[in-house]
Amino acid sequence: MDSFILFIGLVAAGTTSASFFPQVVKVMKTKSTKDISLGMFSLMTFGVLCWLIYGILRKDPAVIAANVVTIVLSGIILFYKIRYS
Amino acid sequence: MDSFILFIGLVAAGTTSASFFPQVVKVMKTKSTKDISLGMFSLMTFGVLCWLIYGILRKDPAVIAANVVTIVLSGIILFYKIRYS
Repeated sequence: MDSFILFIGLVAAGTTSASFFPQVVKVMKTKSTKDISLGMFSLMTFGVLCWLIYGILRKDPAVIAANVVTIVLSGIILFYKIRYS
Repeated sequence: MDSFILFIGLVAAGTTSASFFPQVVKVMKTKSTKDISLGMFSLMTFGVLCWLIYGILRKDPAVIAANVVTIVLSGIILFYKIRYS
């Protein structure tokens, strides 16, 4: 694969996984989750779990790594949403 | 590829993309975005744009389709966050 395409893919995976981090910090600081959708983070956490299983079945270390990080972050947001609403 | 693995991948892609939809409905209804992280949806929209470019460069119709849907939904949430906060 062209190394530019690989670079774009790595930026894409890194950015979408990292994007959950500022939301985790926000819910931990404020403990306010009124505007956050329970549906979004339930579906997201389930979907990321499916990505993780997919990565394990395909033995794809990049997919596994990105989704291990994401499921933890998405799971924390879901936990705060359920706990504080 | 094993058809079970393909099925898990399709469920994963469908669920993570669809997860944005309930959040879009919520911000449109309430116009309240205080608890939503600007950082999350800025990074997410940028990251999904990178996924879309990656899909186009790799000529991968599944990656393109999933990320066209997601960038629209994530972009709407980002727009509401900027507009109503």
